[in-house]
Amino acid sequence: MPVTGQVTIRPAVLTDLPAIVHLLADDPLGATRERDVDPLPEAYRIAFAAIDADPMNELVVACAADGAVVGTLQLTITASLSRLGTTRATIEGVRVAAAARSLGLGQRLVEWAIDRARARGCGVIQLTTDRTRVDAHRFYERLGFVASHVGMKRMIDPA
Amino acid sequence: MPVTGQVTIRPAVLTDLPAIVHLLADDPLGATRERDVDPLPEAYRIAFAAIDADPMNELVVACAADGAVVGTLQLTITASLSRLGTTRATIEGVRVAAAARSLGLGQRLVEWAIDRARARGCGVIQLTTDRTRVDAHRFYERLGFVASHVGMKRMIDPA
Repeated sequence: MPVTGQVTIRPAVLTDLPAIVHLLADDPLGATRERDVDPLPEAYRIAFAAIDADPMNELVVACAADGAVVGTLQLTITASLSRLGTTRATIEGVRVAAAARSLGLGQRLVEWAIDRARARGCGVIQLTTDRTRVDAHRFYERLGFVASHVGMKRMIDPA
Repeated sequence: MPVTGQVTIRPAVLTDLPAIVHLLADDPLGATRERDVDPLPEAYRIAFAAIDADPMNELVVACAADGAVVGTLQLTITASLSRLGTTRATIEGVRVAAAARSLGLGQRLVEWAIDRARARGCGVIQLTTDRTRVDAHRFYERLGFVASHVGMKRMIDPA
């Protein structure tokens, strides 16, 4: 999978879904959480439809010159009262294909997200990364992010 | 402002906005970021309208028996592909009035958010708190949250 500078970032479409799930699963943490099987679990299709229908969410893919999906990212825009009514952008699910790492693609994806957040009027862009992803912390710090917060999560049993 | 067990949590309405901004400003970090003045900066009104119009956002207030707003919280529901298409709930802007602290109101607000997230089909509820809010970390850990992530933010200049 040769990845040159000819990478395009575009909105994801339903036919990208298997490639996106493959990226989510091809990761030390994702491998234990995702099910990259054919056919895909219906839950992914339901989630894709919900993201696609929500104008405050943008799921994008990065495509190599041959059209292969080599990266993905979800951007969520949230109106908020705090900080003088500052709109927030949140990045989730950043993944780059194993064969395409260390080529600056992750940086291009995050810079796309920052530009898009600015265009949508956001005053802050935020993300959380697992404490174990030390390389990711350095990566985001180089892109201007400050590790000012503790990210806390609690799993919820279904209703 | 006596706060008994008779606290009601309900969706915020526009007339609550000055009280909510007062709560956001009555905080060591908020004091440097908010403008709790009369009339309120228009930016708050614009943000309130955007939150109110978005079905994926719920801004609530906790009211004492006399109707006074003594707490607030914003819950955001976000569809997501990762973790098998798990819908996420995010808590932002949790505040309790100075006169009403240490009475369990923060816990009631967060438990409301957990119940509401469950009812909306979320599999995870998450938040970030400033690294300096050590008491908040302990508070959320008591409520089942795990400090598994680093929260990173980057300010964005307007477009």
